[in-house]
Amino acid sequence: MRKVEITGYGYYVPAETVEFGGQIRHRVPKGGSDTQLSMAVAAAKAALANSGLEITDIDCIVSASAVGVQPIPCTAALIHEQIAKGTDIPAMDINTTCTSFVSSFDYVSYLIDAGRYNKVLLVASELASVGLNPKQKESYELFGDGAAAVVLSKCESGTSGVIFGKQATWSEGAHDTEIRGGLTGLYPDKYAEDPAEYCFDMNGLKVLKLAGRKLPKFFDAFLEESGYTMDDIDMVVPHQASKALGMIMPLIGVPKDKYIDIVPQYGNMVSVAIPHALIWAIENGKIKKGDTVLLIGTAAGLTANALLFKY
Amino acid sequence: MRKVEITGYGYYVPAETVEFGGQIRHRVPKGGSDTQLSMAVAAAKAALANSGLEITDIDCIVSASAVGVQPIPCTAALIHEQIAKGTDIPAMDINTTCTSFVSSFDYVSYLIDAGRYNKVLLVASELASVGLNPKQKESYELFGDGAAAVVLSKCESGTSGVIFGKQATWSEGAHDTEIRGGLTGLYPDKYAEDPAEYCFDMNGLKVLKLAGRKLPKFFDAFLEESGYTMDDIDMVVPHQASKALGMIMPLIGVPKDKYIDIVPQYGNMVSVAIPHALIWAIENGKIKKGDTVLLIGTAAGLTANALLFKY
Repeated sequence: MRKVEITGYGYYVPAETVEFGGQIRHRVPKGGSDTQLSMAVAAAKAALANSGLEITDIDCIVSASAVGVQPIPCTAALIHEQIAKGTDIPAMDINTTCTSFVSSFDYVSYLIDAGRYNKVLLVASELASVGLNPKQKESYELFGDGAAAVVLSKCESGTSGVIFGKQATWSEGAHDTEIRGGLTGLYPDKYAEDPAEYCFDMNGLKVLKLAGRKLPKFFDAFLEESGYTMDDIDMVVPHQASKALGMIMPLIGVPKDKYIDIVPQYGNMVSVAIPHALIWAIENGKIKKGDTVLLIGTAAGLTANALLFKY
Repeated sequence: MRKVEITGYGYYVPAETVEFGGQIRHRVPKGGSDTQLSMAVAAAKAALANSGLEITDIDCIVSASAVGVQPIPCTAALIHEQIAKGTDIPAMDINTTCTSFVSSFDYVSYLIDAGRYNKVLLVASELASVGLNPKQKESYELFGDGAAAVVLSKCESGTSGVIFGKQATWSEGAHDTEIRGGLTGLYPDKYAEDPAEYCFDMNGLKVLKLAGRKLPKFFDAFLEESGYTMDDIDMVVPHQASKALGMIMPLIGVPKDKYIDIVPQYGNMVSVAIPHALIWAIENGKIKKGDTVLLIGTAAGLTANALLFKY
């Protein structure tokens, strides 16, 4: 077990909501004051307050978002500017799209376990609403805005830690969920010609089929390699990908009462969905100290991430 | 020493060049066939061929570029699609802007040392020319396009490895080198109003002043913490930031004959500059197996990275 513990957490969701057939989405309205960066900062500050730490106690700031604030510099440097200006704290982005938080938690745990860093602030923030296409109903009605952050600390006692992590990427699905425009592949100068190219574009059915075909085998291997069974796991926090959660969870063998589903209240908050659902579960008593927790999800790529840890 | 070895490398630079007062820059011409992705793939394939490995021998693909190809998915997934489609190899992006390769080498070495991955393909690729502003002479004449890749493998014998790594971010400089437009901070829909906002924008003098003030102390601490002196280092591969290299290197105590300067031939290739200069140094006999090599540079952020390894 890699000796890492969540010692603080916080999140921010915009107060404003929209509703689609009873499904609630928190979204920054056009002209609203929240930005991807302001939400990241709010979540980061909440996590620091919750942990009882000052920013100067932090050894590294990691931005674990799918989409950045600017092409240059990385988002973590911009968060640094708001909460850590004047310090030497290193800042970096880790990106596996929707599962960036899981990858960051997983990979950063090696740095903490090895003693490189003792306390790391992980921040995920997404302003998904800015890039949605009103003409694509399935994605337009699915996404929500927000931010979530946790402080990961070295757990010297060894009572908490990362048990096992696994990631796989199946690029057959690289174009099933994407935003093509805005960077070098399709530079912003072509925006006026076809604005839809700069919006999120998904083929939900294709993602679902690929995930349905690949995920059960991936998760079977995960359990076998980790030496754990579903009975050993207290709670599963899946990526809040869509309403299809109720179909995917039984497919990989997760019982109905063992996973968090807040899609009706929040929708898919991209990279924020998993840390936000994790914090929601802790605050609502679904996860208690000492529980064995599984984070699992698929991301654009198509990437799958699973992480088992003792909270 | 973290048991990691470079077991293969490769790079790609576009054949086409432009010249500014004798300074050569390789750049993809407007309408040219090279893209950020095609260059990444060429470098990755060259590194695999040089290492004698097949893609199926690789355990993880890391994209270590400053700017991405698309906002979603991450660039590593798009590289995966070109060279690893049909495999399960995980793909992720690590980003500290210009020093992304150094951060990736540094942080991934923990994953390799701990046995999570045995062989990792690191790829940096930049199409800087697409976002240059002809009206800003200092940046317009500085940057070059290209890609570089290395294979990092577990070094069981312990003869090669990472000796020491250090990163710091000084966000006082967050806006001294940036591209503001293209993502959530300034969405592409405003492009027509002010195209310059979507171009690279730098204040070279401010960067130089901040780096000049911070870097000597950073590097002194690096040496002290690592237990190494300049005499123990065989060759320094600095970020090819600008012509000011000849001013910065003596400032931190690097002698004239101990660092690579190929700015006149290639300019600043953003995240590609360091791995490309490293490969150039190996191919030109400036670095030999067993040498103690220092990678060092500053990146937009402002981030500083230093990594000492035994080649």
